[in-house]
Amino acid sequence: MINILTQKDELTVLYNNQIIIKHQTKHPAFYLGYGTEKIDSYRGNYKFDDYIEQRIGLSSFNVIDHSITFSNHSVTLIIDFEELDNRLILKLKSSIDLNRFWMRLYATPEEKVYGCGEQASYFNLRYRNYPLWTSEPGVGRDKQSLTTFYADLKDKAGGDYYTTYYPEPTFISTRKYWVHFDSYAYANFNFKHQDFHELFFWETPKKIVLSFEDSYLDLVEDLTNYTGRPPILPEFVLDGMTLGVQGGLNQVLTYLKQAQDANIKVSGLWCQDWAGHNYTSFGKRLYWNWVLNENVYPNLKEEIKKLDQQNVAFLTYICPFLLENETLYNEAKDQGYLALTKENSVYKEDFGEFYCGIVDLTNPDAFKWYKQIIKTNIIDLGIKGWMADFGEYLPVDCVLHNGIDAKLMHNQWPVLWAKCNYEAVEESGKLGEIFYFMRAGAHGSQHYATSLWAGDQSVNWETHDGIASVIPSALSTGIIGNPFTHSDIGGFTSLHGNIRTKELFERWLEMNVFTSYMRSHEGNRPSSNFQFYQSEDTLKLMERMTSVRVDLKPYIQDLIKQGSTFGYPVQRPLFMHYEDDLITYDLQYEYLFGSDMLIKPVVEQGLFVLDIYLPQDDWVHLWTGNKYSGKQIITIDCPIGYPPVFYRKKSKYSKLFEQITNKYHQ
Amino acid sequence: MINILTQKDELTVLYNNQIIIKHQTKHPAFYLGYGTEKIDSYRGNYKFDDYIEQRIGLSSFNVIDHSITFSNHSVTLIIDFEELDNRLILKLKSSIDLNRFWMRLYATPEEKVYGCGEQASYFNLRYRNYPLWTSEPGVGRDKQSLTTFYADLKDKAGGDYYTTYYPEPTFISTRKYWVHFDSYAYANFNFKHQDFHELFFWETPKKIVLSFEDSYLDLVEDLTNYTGRPPILPEFVLDGMTLGVQGGLNQVLTYLKQAQDANIKVSGLWCQDWAGHNYTSFGKRLYWNWVLNENVYPNLKEEIKKLDQQNVAFLTYICPFLLENETLYNEAKDQGYLALTKENSVYKEDFGEFYCGIVDLTNPDAFKWYKQIIKTNIIDLGIKGWMADFGEYLPVDCVLHNGIDAKLMHNQWPVLWAKCNYEAVEESGKLGEIFYFMRAGAHGSQHYATSLWAGDQSVNWETHDGIASVIPSALSTGIIGNPFTHSDIGGFTSLHGNIRTKELFERWLEMNVFTSYMRSHEGNRPSSNFQFYQSEDTLKLMERMTSVRVDLKPYIQDLIKQGSTFGYPVQRPLFMHYEDDLITYDLQYEYLFGSDMLIKPVVEQGLFVLDIYLPQDDWVHLWTGNKYSGKQIITIDCPIGYPPVFYRKKSKYSKLFEQITNKYHQ
Repeated sequence: MINILTQKDELTVLYNNQIIIKHQTKHPAFYLGYGTEKIDSYRGNYKFDDYIEQRIGLSSFNVIDHSITFSNHSVTLIIDFEELDNRLILKLKSSIDLNRFWMRLYATPEEKVYGCGEQASYFNLRYRNYPLWTSEPGVGRDKQSLTTFYADLKDKAGGDYYTTYYPEPTFISTRKYWVHFDSYAYANFNFKHQDFHELFFWETPKKIVLSFEDSYLDLVEDLTNYTGRPPILPEFVLDGMTLGVQGGLNQVLTYLKQAQDANIKVSGLWCQDWAGHNYTSFGKRLYWNWVLNENVYPNLKEEIKKLDQQNVAFLTYICPFLLENETLYNEAKDQGYLALTKENSVYKEDFGEFYCGIVDLTNPDAFKWYKQIIKTNIIDLGIKGWMADFGEYLPVDCVLHNGIDAKLMHNQWPVLWAKCNYEAVEESGKLGEIFYFMRAGAHGSQHYATSLWAGDQSVNWETHDGIASVIPSALSTGIIGNPFTHSDIGGFTSLHGNIRTKELFERWLEMNVFTSYMRSHEGNRPSSNFQFYQSEDTLKLMERMTSVRVDLKPYIQDLIKQGSTFGYPVQRPLFMHYEDDLITYDLQYEYLFGSDMLIKPVVEQGLFVLDIYLPQDDWVHLWTGNKYSGKQIITIDCPIGYPPVFYRKKSKYSKLFEQITNKYHQ
Repeated sequence: MINILTQKDELTVLYNNQIIIKHQTKHPAFYLGYGTEKIDSYRGNYKFDDYIEQRIGLSSFNVIDHSITFSNHSVTLIIDFEELDNRLILKLKSSIDLNRFWMRLYATPEEKVYGCGEQASYFNLRYRNYPLWTSEPGVGRDKQSLTTFYADLKDKAGGDYYTTYYPEPTFISTRKYWVHFDSYAYANFNFKHQDFHELFFWETPKKIVLSFEDSYLDLVEDLTNYTGRPPILPEFVLDGMTLGVQGGLNQVLTYLKQAQDANIKVSGLWCQDWAGHNYTSFGKRLYWNWVLNENVYPNLKEEIKKLDQQNVAFLTYICPFLLENETLYNEAKDQGYLALTKENSVYKEDFGEFYCGIVDLTNPDAFKWYKQIIKTNIIDLGIKGWMADFGEYLPVDCVLHNGIDAKLMHNQWPVLWAKCNYEAVEESGKLGEIFYFMRAGAHGSQHYATSLWAGDQSVNWETHDGIASVIPSALSTGIIGNPFTHSDIGGFTSLHGNIRTKELFERWLEMNVFTSYMRSHEGNRPSSNFQFYQSEDTLKLMERMTSVRVDLKPYIQDLIKQGSTFGYPVQRPLFMHYEDDLITYDLQYEYLFGSDMLIKPVVEQGLFVLDIYLPQDDWVHLWTGNKYSGKQIITIDCPIGYPPVFYRKKSKYSKLFEQITNKYHQ
């Protein structure tokens, strides 16, 4: 029910008796203006200089039924309010020639907000502001860390608390609504104010959708009714872990045998170097011509069949860029499938000591061609999954086939790229059997990305870009309807003196048992960083943790079904199930794995005893069977291999959990 | 002659046939708006969060004679244009309730601008923006330096290229005008645009004054006709150097004897610890109760008389803050002379492990009382000069006697502090005989500060905060009418691993011969940094350099007279005398010392050969007598003690210079 109340200088819009907009002549709810931006980009890192020439408060209003015209003399914004499917829809139309839009959404001081895509530093976004622009998240992401200092100095790549692969103008509020702004333009969501959220865009969004629900589960369900949901994950993600290894067929089969000999449950081999390697000062990189390199992986189709017989899926890698002067690049160039420069030549993007063309996914023929590449070069080989990397790099100065400014397409690119992969799988009839995982995201990734992964963390313990950061990342994408995500076991980025240790790898491994997918990564500099195959200890731990994983299969399978059916995230903030407990709203380094397991991963070096908050419930410690009542902080031992994990005594899976306790007792 | 030309949508204001303002309906020249700021301060370092709610272009205009009303419906700005003393005066009056003002001053793409107070990073301000707010300039001042990183991390004190003790909304343009904006509010001068300078204030300035002249010398003369000029410097600055030493009477007399025994021309002893010491983790600090400490300097009045007989001036230190619970603090507190908190208690400013009260210089009685302290406690002792430190710390949340918001008084504080010192000297009848040097500045410092000094550089070679930075600092304050400045020989700040070396001290010493005053400083951590009295070599060099200084006396005396009479700075950019040579406008690490000497100090470690640009003229190398014609870059040897110095062959002082060449031949 929409109510528009007006007094002399004041207007209030209510929906289901909740205030949505509070407008006063002296404090307008809407502003329009004009700005000119400078965008400096360097290898996926962006710097903005936004010069706002005018910002005009639309102080006057005129209401006709459910349509309000906000204006300041000739500057006008018409908003039609309507209700559809139990949601509030705002349709907006502003005066021409204005390219900056600000809206104040009513807020209360104690309100908290979550979402806005993937946020790796802070799960609760309140009292900070969030530029929304897909980019490299940065190395370090904390101006107070030396890693960030050196990354900024050498590569302009330090990042900050808000830099993310996956920004989205969608969030949920503790006022129990979700809201989505229909725009892919650069945005900045400012949650710093007491009485309103200020939402800023480089265009007037066409539409705003907002919905109240009774619970957070219902919010996610309703939001994913709106966005769509992914298919279930293929079964092999339940049957153990995927080894991220490389070096050619013989090498990866050797690693596989070593792992199998150690009784590790290996259900996948992820070999990103199927197309060969490229060596740069950054580290070992891939050869970006997405064609099987027969020298490296001879006779792969047959080998994959053999692996299938062992229930080992083979996975690989692709991205929407094509290495200059290679076969796919040349073909795409000849067909006019690559994005262009303003001078009408092929746009060559710098990836650090090599250059690539960009498949123009706005060109239906190019889109179709690239989808076909995925089918022919990957799916037809029997490959069961891949990393669909690099959606965040669309340069703002390239020229696209659809004629839309690349600046406005930039934030949409990740979902176009997701859709290209989605349709390739769908048209192969393999949804639910084959999956790909993406770091870049946008509105629509909820449906088109079969899974996310958290991207390239530093191989260390730094809060904003190390092991800890993948937890808020999972919670923030989850709360806006991306049920499935995971992270590279061991992290990725070894730069500026950061080297992965055995301890880091092992803590990451034990954590990822309790996510939707276990997959390791060798990192960008494999030879100088710890690898599982270097240590008998670690192999033993992998044996143990993958066994736990397999034993949890019925429970995890249920979570994955819930994700695909209702959009419920596999990793959930505690308040999703304990919404009356105010403490839970500020926990971002512990989470629920489904409704019945509570995990607080160990994300500090040398930490073997940990404090953990348990909400009101009856809890059982998975590794000892010790029982705890909730609404208290308890202290728990957490040697390696025994991360703090609890289950609900009343869970319908309690028998299963009990068996695990008996089998793996600490 | 003022001309206001209007077309349909366009208005142009010309003064002496030069465009001053170009206004178009679509690109207004003036904007008014409303904003709310958050100011975080920590020990003199400030962080601003300025939330601009509205910024309204005043697109319409209405001209009546020489008065223009710019407006956007009810938002109006009335500007009266008049000519007075061959200057253009704009008097401004805007609608109430608006606290943000932007003006676009017409500019050309190739135009350069200089001034805006003391700018230590870039002399030419064009294509950068400059927040104008007096503060600590920061340690490192370069986000790419590790010094800055650690200063930010530990003390929020890293600074940036624009942070300065002395900001002023006054600049000169290569279009040959100077302009001053009559406001002490926070400002931001944005010179990034091609076609205009955008000048932003947190209030509508009451007045703008602009004047064209034929030459840069005339510009400085006219500007200082407007601002006023300082008296001449006391003669002792010409008679050698002042030793910055401390440790009590016996200690400083020992240093003096050591220097005199080495035949160093010592004309002053600067002993900042006359009131005693305070030890903090930052280093050795002063005891901020401005009363002679008889334990440390017993019988000082008589000792000063003895020093006078040797032509050695005694100098010391004061600042506008009073150490909590000490005698002056208590007296001021009892009289109600200290600034208050909003709760009406004494405002205690944190200076790092000690707290102080702030003498409220807006209270005429407090002002008079503090002036009397200067007279009684300093001047009456026979003291010939002092560092008048710390004008940049006025907290924005204190309550002042005059009732004006401390935020608006903050930038004015340095000149109030200068005026207090000025009147103390003036009323003692000692202008020109006694002087004080200040780091903080504001509009009016040209008259009320008898000299500036460049503040606290790092004791290193870093561009933005080390030895090099004092050169653009001198040029920028000089070009807006502060003829006299100098720097601590050896630098001051030893933090974050920076330790002063012998080489740094010696390079700084040889440079400062060619400034208005030679004064050394022991730095904040004397015992761990190089001191002149530790090295026979250095004493020898001081003997040599102070002899050169004394031999230059007639020339320097002339420069000081020019400074006091016409406002001509002692250190001048090359374009001041070679304005047709476009190369000279971008030189900020070489300068003219008066009109007839050209200096390029050595500001890099281990550098003994230097390239130097000579403008069109006949030049003689001071240390060899070698002759060079100008408009070329030459390469010159510069061992320690022989910084690149040249004189004009046609100088009326050429005989004097020739004698120096003969006496000190390389």
